[in-house]
Amino acid sequence: MKIGILGTGMVGSTIGSKLIALGHDVMMGSRTSTNEKAAAWVKSAGAKSSAGTFAEAAAFGEVIFNCTKGDATLDVMKLAGEKNLAGKILLDISNPLDFSKGMPPFLIPSLSNTNSLGEEIQKQFPATKVVKTLNTMNCNLMVDASLVAGEHDVFLCGNDDGAKQKVKEILGWFGWKNPIDIGDLTGARATEMMLPIWLKLWGVNQTPNFNFKIVK
Amino acid sequence: MKIGILGTGMVGSTIGSKLIALGHDVMMGSRTSTNEKAAAWVKSAGAKSSAGTFAEAAAFGEVIFNCTKGDATLDVMKLAGEKNLAGKILLDISNPLDFSKGMPPFLIPSLSNTNSLGEEIQKQFPATKVVKTLNTMNCNLMVDASLVAGEHDVFLCGNDDGAKQKVKEILGWFGWKNPIDIGDLTGARATEMMLPIWLKLWGVNQTPNFNFKIVK
Repeated sequence: MKIGILGTGMVGSTIGSKLIALGHDVMMGSRTSTNEKAAAWVKSAGAKSSAGTFAEAAAFGEVIFNCTKGDATLDVMKLAGEKNLAGKILLDISNPLDFSKGMPPFLIPSLSNTNSLGEEIQKQFPATKVVKTLNTMNCNLMVDASLVAGEHDVFLCGNDDGAKQKVKEILGWFGWKNPIDIGDLTGARATEMMLPIWLKLWGVNQTPNFNFKIVK
Repeated sequence: MKIGILGTGMVGSTIGSKLIALGHDVMMGSRTSTNEKAAAWVKSAGAKSSAGTFAEAAAFGEVIFNCTKGDATLDVMKLAGEKNLAGKILLDISNPLDFSKGMPPFLIPSLSNTNSLGEEIQKQFPATKVVKTLNTMNCNLMVDASLVAGEHDVFLCGNDDGAKQKVKEILGWFGWKNPIDIGDLTGARATEMMLPIWLKLWGVNQTPNFNFKIVK
C-alpha cells in the first residue's frame, strides 16, 4: 500500500521504517522537499521510501499518518491540502501538548477537555476520515506491541466505521490483536487526556516501554 | 481509628460502610446534622457510625475522606473548617466533573490541565496533608480490589511523604498491595484527567468493575 507520513521526527521515522519493513511504499512529508531529516530517513529506509512536501506525501498516500507535533498539526494539514486528504483515512497519533512553559507540558486548552486535536482536524477536514489511535504510548511500542510483555491495550476512535475497520487491520500489522474501539471521535478527548498520566508513569517507570491494560 | 467522611453519596456511604466493617469509628458529614441520607446510612451501618455536620465530621476524624462531588468540594472544605482539618491527612478521591451540559461531563476548566482539584484544595488548606488517590475507579472497587480479578493498579500522589505512607496503609485495608506513587500533588492533574477515558470504557465494558493496569 502507498502510505504518506506527515512529520519527520522520531514518531514519523519509526512508523515509516516499520511500514517499509512490512513491504509498503512510504513517502515522508515535511515543509520543504529538501528536508534533511527526511533525506536521512530515505537514505536509511531504502528503495521503497521517498520524501516530499506535506502536499506530495498526502497526495501519494492511500492512507496518511499524522506524526507531527500537536501544536503544528493543523498548520501542517493545511499545507498537506484538503483535496490531497479528501476521502482518505488519517491515522492521527499526535497529542496537543504545549511545552512552552517547560516540563511537564500541558494540553493546549482550546484543543482539550471539551474539544480535542482529533476532533478539530475532523472539523476542519470533513472529507477526511480521521481515526485517533496509538497516541497513548511511545513510538517504538506503537509499531511493535511485543515490546511490552503480555497483554496490554491500544485504543481507537473515529466517526467512520469502515475507516476504523481498516485501521484495526493496520494495527494488526504492528502486533495489536484486540484494539479497544471507544466509539466516535469525542473519544480523542479521552485518549489525549491520558498523556499527563503517561508522562508521570514514564518518570516512575524510568522507561517509555510500558502500557495501559484494561482489566475487568 | 476515628475517620471523618465528607459527603453522603454512594462513594461516601460505600467507603464509610467498609471502614465500619474493618472496625473503625466513622462520622459522615453533610451540610446539616439532620441529613436524611446520613441518618439512613447510620441506621444501616450500626453502632460505630455517626452523622454530623461537615465541621463535626472533620473535627471527629483523625483522617478525612473527601467523598463530595468535585464541583462542591471547595465549598464543603470551607464548611468543614480550616482548623478542623489542620494537620490531618485528607484522602481526596473526588473529581472536578461538570455535568451541567449533560453526558459526558467535562473537567472544570479552572481545576484541570494546569491545575487540579487536589492541588486547589492543598493551596486553600495548606495545613492539611492532601493525598489524591482512588479517584480513577468505581467506589465498590475502591474498597475491594479483589472485585476485579488479577493485578491492576491504584495511583496516589501528594506533597507529604509521611501522609502518603499512611495512605498506602489505608489502601492496604482495601486490598491494594502495591499502589503506584506518582510523586507530588501535580499528579492529581494526571489522575483526574483519566476520568474521560474511564467514562468511555464504562460504556464499552458495560460494567463499572474494571480498572487500569500498568504493564511494563
